[in-house]
Amino acid sequence: MAKAIRKSLPEAGQGGPVSDRTLRGFAGYNMKRAFNAVQADLARTLEPFGLRMMTFTALVLVIDNPDLSQTQLAGALAVERSNLVVIIDDLEQAGLITRNPSPTDRRSHALRATLAGRRLCERALQAVRAHEEKLLGGLGENGAAALIAALQTVEQGNRGGE
Amino acid sequence: MAKAIRKSLPEAGQGGPVSDRTLRGFAGYNMKRAFNAVQADLARTLEPFGLRMMTFTALVLVIDNPDLSQTQLAGALAVERSNLVVIIDDLEQAGLITRNPSPTDRRSHALRATLAGRRLCERALQAVRAHEEKLLGGLGENGAAALIAALQTVEQGNRGGE
Repeated sequence: MAKAIRKSLPEAGQGGPVSDRTLRGFAGYNMKRAFNAVQADLARTLEPFGLRMMTFTALVLVIDNPDLSQTQLAGALAVERSNLVVIIDDLEQAGLITRNPSPTDRRSHALRATLAGRRLCERALQAVRAHEEKLLGGLGENGAAALIAALQTVEQGNRGGE
Repeated sequence: MAKAIRKSLPEAGQGGPVSDRTLRGFAGYNMKRAFNAVQADLARTLEPFGLRMMTFTALVLVIDNPDLSQTQLAGALAVERSNLVVIIDDLEQAGLITRNPSPTDRRSHALRATLAGRRLCERALQAVRAHEEKLLGGLGENGAAALIAALQTVEQGNRGGE
């Protein structure tokens, strides 16, 4: 009985606040923490549409790039082929995209969104825009644009340095 | 033969540039892309020390919080218990941390860095600071501080809104 009670309580002395003062000085750490928070809210935003972050991202890319190949999509999403298969299967089973014979390579498939896929994506994009407005609200409009520009500078600069 | 040659060539029409114009409007997407670039460079930076991003982060947290419990560390790293075990095993086997009986809960362990762990961490921190200076170079000093502040605003605001 004592054990059961103990288990149901928050673990005192075990879950206390942990100082991350050294790590907070690194942009990379702050980027990861902020992204984790964004991702959690994004998951809640996409859930009513039956989408996850990766299926939403893939659907937007297929719409912006008709006849995208699976190789191109894997590269754009930076995922392994095995993970890509799950993403494509999910979207196909939901009737949001179709796999068609590639016009340039018959071993490959060209991905295209269905009408239902384009319609769902429009509604999901609206919800994600609202989610972003909420999460960037503390920065003001200029602050949000400056954040995006700074992130792109880091990404480009870092890639250029390789 | 034709097949073999074809296989060794880059897949023409398969790996062409993919437009992510819609996604680029979202801070979350830019955050993820920038973090991927940072993470790749960080992995190269930590490799000579025998550390990965997660073992480095855990080591810094253990040093900043002596006698940290495994539950606290899992929370601070935002990882599942099973992943935490791998991280702790790696650090312990490398002689960088020790698991000691907890002063407050005998079912638990208190984590402490060894002298070798503290020394390795000092050198790794210097290398990571240089990696950050390089990757944030394009922003200037004020820009780097502004980026970190903006990321913290997003993280805090988003958490507060839950």
